[in-house]
Amino acid sequence: MVAPADVKKWITHMQPPAVERMLKEAATENVISFAGGLPAETLFPTEDLNEALQKVIAEHASEALQYYWAEGYAPLREQIAQRMSARGMPTKPTEVLVTHGAQQALDLIAKLLIRAGDTVVLESPTYVPAIQAFEMHRPAFEPLTRNEHGIDLQQLRDVLSRSRPRLLYVVPTGHNPTGVSLTYPQRRELLELLQQSDAYVVEDDAYGELQYGARQTPLRALAPEFRQHFFVGSFSKILSPGLRVGWIAAPEALIKELILIKQASDLQTSTLTQLVLSNYMSSTSLNRHVERCIDYYRERRDCVLASCERHLPPSLRWTRPDSGFSVWMELAADISAGSLLKKALNNGVAFEPGEPFFVSQRPLNYVRVSFSNLECEQIEDGIQRLAGLLSAS
Amino acid sequence: MVAPADVKKWITHMQPPAVERMLKEAATENVISFAGGLPAETLFPTEDLNEALQKVIAEHASEALQYYWAEGYAPLREQIAQRMSARGMPTKPTEVLVTHGAQQALDLIAKLLIRAGDTVVLESPTYVPAIQAFEMHRPAFEPLTRNEHGIDLQQLRDVLSRSRPRLLYVVPTGHNPTGVSLTYPQRRELLELLQQSDAYVVEDDAYGELQYGARQTPLRALAPEFRQHFFVGSFSKILSPGLRVGWIAAPEALIKELILIKQASDLQTSTLTQLVLSNYMSSTSLNRHVERCIDYYRERRDCVLASCERHLPPSLRWTRPDSGFSVWMELAADISAGSLLKKALNNGVAFEPGEPFFVSQRPLNYVRVSFSNLECEQIEDGIQRLAGLLSAS
Repeated sequence: MVAPADVKKWITHMQPPAVERMLKEAATENVISFAGGLPAETLFPTEDLNEALQKVIAEHASEALQYYWAEGYAPLREQIAQRMSARGMPTKPTEVLVTHGAQQALDLIAKLLIRAGDTVVLESPTYVPAIQAFEMHRPAFEPLTRNEHGIDLQQLRDVLSRSRPRLLYVVPTGHNPTGVSLTYPQRRELLELLQQSDAYVVEDDAYGELQYGARQTPLRALAPEFRQHFFVGSFSKILSPGLRVGWIAAPEALIKELILIKQASDLQTSTLTQLVLSNYMSSTSLNRHVERCIDYYRERRDCVLASCERHLPPSLRWTRPDSGFSVWMELAADISAGSLLKKALNNGVAFEPGEPFFVSQRPLNYVRVSFSNLECEQIEDGIQRLAGLLSAS
Repeated sequence: MVAPADVKKWITHMQPPAVERMLKEAATENVISFAGGLPAETLFPTEDLNEALQKVIAEHASEALQYYWAEGYAPLREQIAQRMSARGMPTKPTEVLVTHGAQQALDLIAKLLIRAGDTVVLESPTYVPAIQAFEMHRPAFEPLTRNEHGIDLQQLRDVLSRSRPRLLYVVPTGHNPTGVSLTYPQRRELLELLQQSDAYVVEDDAYGELQYGARQTPLRALAPEFRQHFFVGSFSKILSPGLRVGWIAAPEALIKELILIKQASDLQTSTLTQLVLSNYMSSTSLNRHVERCIDYYRERRDCVLASCERHLPPSLRWTRPDSGFSVWMELAADISAGSLLKKALNNGVAFEPGEPFFVSQRPLNYVRVSFSNLECEQIEDGIQRLAGLLSAS
């Protein structure tokens, strides 16, 4: 019997099994968890979604429970296109493909673009499941150092001068894990470099609508004429991840190719969840809901920063997120986040060790601290416990 | 700019764009459509599903709208395992992965098993989107002739003697498009051959619960100790395709690998649809619903066969489905199904030209006639119109 692929050999960016196990246990226990980075359940607009569900079942049950075309529910494509256009990114419904969450968007784009050995440029650190989606196609990764100051664009210049990357994956707004967005000049410069290359850019905008200060403009809005551009959007952070609805916006010719790939991958996104979402959006103001989310998460962002300043040794470095769900923390060089996690769990606190977020040269002394699903008292308590552990170690 | 993949070059099994367009238009018009092969909307248990939805929103909204683990909602994995066990396939919940429909099950298995150039053995004709899921990984296909008499097992012996196939994809029950299941001796012989090889077998059981006569035993039940076996199940045909819930049952070690691939592909299947399904199954008898479905589709199967015998020239050959949604018809050798479709649409009838169902040597004179979503009067009317066109051509 030929062994199947040992998947761990080609999906290498993940928490070690022991850490994975600890985090999974922590999720079910009475632990203050800075891990996960889940949206706050208290924000889910249960009543409005329930109304939408009622309406779908009462008026569109046959349609909602039946097969639909691979490209997505026509009214929803229209609504997504309108939403994008209202955000300064003129988009036609035929330039939109509805996906089973933003993660599937990345998988479909990877299937379209990446052949084994192709160069893929990533920020490092970056969103772990994105690395995994690309890893399945066995590319060569080129990391660009990413921190609170943005992307190291000199590294990008170097990469472009010595190779022809197939794609650049970037999270310009609400970068995960740092929570720090690229500035306007960085966006302009990034786009200029890319437009001179033949690389595709994948702009992951999962947190793009959850900005806590001055709003940054999406890359797609800055360069609407740029054809090598995939914009990935998601309803997971602004509405509900359990629905699993995201989308890709790209030139129609690319969307047409992606529709074929989508069909071969899972035929279509759930008709029921698409209809619920579409009905929700036509009967309620999603924008008003997003405003509530921004206020909610901004408050927690402020709490976590205040707690960090109060309790953590000033020698530590951490980011000041302008978007997103988490703070990225650099511990002293000799502290391993994995060992710290073990102690933290004994003290009722969990967080995400930062190692898998790095594309290469994976330092062990980084930590992602998500604040999105906690109350300020829990945040204060949890940071205080962490500080105690750090000063004891 | 490097062009992205021209997807049509590696997903080659599909209707030509012109046929695709005709069928898509036909779906929205006042046409008797034997195309599509959709489950009958009238069977959707809307009331029971609505009750389940109510319950989920009233009691589990936070959970249903939140992220969940990649392997699938724990109670649903349990229910699927119990259902499989009750069908003579003892299965543990840890041997089940919940997927976004059976199509995603095929995609995940393909990602795990197929490297470019690997040999994949398929029945020919077979279910088109399965061919597409495999095509994305650029294998070499070996077709096994499939017709109303089953699979040509001598061809399989030949293939196994001269190559080491990576996997065999087979639809033993309710084979799509023929609707004809493998007999018990054929199943036994197929399994014996496979057990002597090192190929994996993917058993697609999408129609396995919709058998209209004597029940055939799934391969998994005949060889429970066989480790190179993936069983693919689906709720699409017995309940609702719009939910997009299917599953893979396989040895736990393989499921563990598939969970990693699932996470990299779309994180998880919609929590909402999984909870709705799970609640539906615990408050209602899905088995009783399946019995209703069997009666309903059997009646239509009988109608289509009676209409064919009444109206079609006896020189034509067509299958007698014991399961599934369609009859497979061989036209005279000089008739192209594509041209016939054009004329048929002018006469208010649609069907699926058979060419893409063939893995190689794709004859043009086959037609798939689906009866699942039509009333008997429509079936009679449609077959009569088709007969008229055939006798005129």
